[in-house]
Amino acid sequence: MLETDKGVCVDGFKAAGVREGKYGVALIAADCVCEAAGVFTKNSVTAAPVAWTRRIIKNGLQAVVANSGCANACVKEGLKDARKMAKLAGSALNVEKTHVGVASTGIIGRRINLEVVEKLVQEASAKLSKSSKASMDAAKALMTTDTTPKQVSAEHNGIQVGGICKGAGMIAPDMATMLCFITTNAEFTGSQLKTALATAVGKSFNMTAIDGDMSTNDTVVLLASGKKKCNAKTFQKLLDYVTLRLAQMIARDGEGASKYLVVDIINAKNESSAVKAAKAVITSPLVKTALYGENPNWGRIMSSIGSRIRVKPMNVTITFTSAKGSVRVFDRGRIGNLEKARKILKEKDITATVNLRLGKSKATAYGCDLTEEYVRINAGYN
Amino acid sequence: MLETDKGVCVDGFKAAGVREGKYGVALIAADCVCEAAGVFTKNSVTAAPVAWTRRIIKNGLQAVVANSGCANACVKEGLKDARKMAKLAGSALNVEKTHVGVASTGIIGRRINLEVVEKLVQEASAKLSKSSKASMDAAKALMTTDTTPKQVSAEHNGIQVGGICKGAGMIAPDMATMLCFITTNAEFTGSQLKTALATAVGKSFNMTAIDGDMSTNDTVVLLASGKKKCNAKTFQKLLDYVTLRLAQMIARDGEGASKYLVVDIINAKNESSAVKAAKAVITSPLVKTALYGENPNWGRIMSSIGSRIRVKPMNVTITFTSAKGSVRVFDRGRIGNLEKARKILKEKDITATVNLRLGKSKATAYGCDLTEEYVRINAGYN
Repeated sequence: MLETDKGVCVDGFKAAGVREGKYGVALIAADCVCEAAGVFTKNSVTAAPVAWTRRIIKNGLQAVVANSGCANACVKEGLKDARKMAKLAGSALNVEKTHVGVASTGIIGRRINLEVVEKLVQEASAKLSKSSKASMDAAKALMTTDTTPKQVSAEHNGIQVGGICKGAGMIAPDMATMLCFITTNAEFTGSQLKTALATAVGKSFNMTAIDGDMSTNDTVVLLASGKKKCNAKTFQKLLDYVTLRLAQMIARDGEGASKYLVVDIINAKNESSAVKAAKAVITSPLVKTALYGENPNWGRIMSSIGSRIRVKPMNVTITFTSAKGSVRVFDRGRIGNLEKARKILKEKDITATVNLRLGKSKATAYGCDLTEEYVRINAGYN
Repeated sequence: MLETDKGVCVDGFKAAGVREGKYGVALIAADCVCEAAGVFTKNSVTAAPVAWTRRIIKNGLQAVVANSGCANACVKEGLKDARKMAKLAGSALNVEKTHVGVASTGIIGRRINLEVVEKLVQEASAKLSKSSKASMDAAKALMTTDTTPKQVSAEHNGIQVGGICKGAGMIAPDMATMLCFITTNAEFTGSQLKTALATAVGKSFNMTAIDGDMSTNDTVVLLASGKKKCNAKTFQKLLDYVTLRLAQMIARDGEGASKYLVVDIINAKNESSAVKAAKAVITSPLVKTALYGENPNWGRIMSSIGSRIRVKPMNVTITFTSAKGSVRVFDRGRIGNLEKARKILKEKDITATVNLRLGKSKATAYGCDLTEEYVRINAGYN
């Protein structure tokens, strides 16, 4: 497998992105109607674009229009506006509106400014291109509190999978919108795509401190142009790679984050308890603040796991690893070298490995520390 | 019902508290073996004092010894040390160790310094008194990141109920230890006390952003000296009052908190969904940071509720209230006066009322904002 720089501009796709003030618009367009699948928020308060896209996706998508600056959620005219947005993007791209997916991110409860969106859609459609830069422009147009645009693509034997995404809220991502658009030249049916996407999302975005709860707008959409036959295993591998890399980029770009944390749970009793344990650690504000303080407080890791699953503390080993080395801070009752641990925690990239010694299952979660800057960003976001 | 200033020094009880460096010791002693009941952490990583007290409480308690400065959790010698702590308090008070409850709070994974504890127990036992100040000293001895000691007591027709507690971690109290000791002169059996205590805790501490997860050390213990017969209803009312006031004190004293938040969910479909909705709001870091920023971001309230229960956004009314007045920021699709809302949020005490219009059930939760100071406290706590 080869990492490429196409982003969503894999074979058969073009993209563009433009911004004006708080608003940004990203377009992705295919040269035919694509088989498509989506994973959407489970929040019962669903933004209008999610309702629209969920409804039309089964008939296939030829384009996606996404905006930052307004969530189009909890607004009476929301669905009407989402439909209009599909229509005006469709007109610009010469695509039926029922083949145009819509996604939005931004403040809840404000009506979307369709005049601005229309102007930006016009500008973007004139700029559509299959260059890597065009995909990156689309990624940039989605950004809200993100500090970096996020795109990745990979290729194997001519099969291409690429994606862009936005997302930066990390502490309790129940409300931090994540938008992700993935394209491929592979040929699969909508239902095959759905299964593959669910598998990939389960190991990536859902392990990025996402915790089952979701924002009103969360959307992951996959479009397949069907230009190349491909075996399911190869495709899954490429898709897993793209979603995992994007999820890691989100974790690294957590709001206000100063450190990137990977939590490896090993030898759990079963997969479900491994996942619960990994998520418990990655979402714990006490673990996250300790990490920010470069404080090897392994007790908070132990306690966060114990609050979700059964553990035997005297069986457990907790190890911190970074470029500075590795140290067992807690090993079945014995406390390790905490001075060394403090040095290890001075690095930006930290892995915490927890060996539960209860079975053979494992899970990995991705996240970041909790800083004063997170509070400042979210107190002021407006 | 009359609020009094006895704290735990109600009829039949004495108390004392002393501190030295990081360690504090609180003693509560009765003049006879009391019927007793407890509510303990559900964390599978249980501190040794919890294991000890849970085991002996059914035989009744005559005294409680509690320390701050060390959690006595995840340490091989933990249970032996907890037993020794019961023994040395028992010796000082002339009480069998099997009638001495033990509780600890502090850092996990360090062995408790029993020499220091013994010295402090000696000092405290010499100071035992039934004064209000003695109860307050005990409350002070429990403090960790608390900024104020917490005690309250109430009386009705000679029935007295009093309590002290510590607890200040608020953002995700899964690991923020809460210790609470309640005394009464009423006569009830252990199992009657247990039922009454579970009811009271469910409406108070469990609604203080506690979220089902718990620390390794959480302990609420109730001792009844049995000096006065009492009807169950009167007792429940007094007990509810004491636990609710203590829970509110904990919420107000949240780590780094600058504002106190009450979330009232009304007209929910049923009680369980009302409780889930109230907890979703009170624990949401995005709601808490918005409150800190005096930012009337009602969308975060809506989204946090929608992530846990089914809601119909266009049925919902969200109201902010403070000493500065009251404003419906969102009323079934209409946005209220956000300028007025900003003024209301400048106060220290805020109530957010959410009318779901789905039924007749309600629930109230207590919490605080999330500030940069919270991050500083928890990054540095050591």
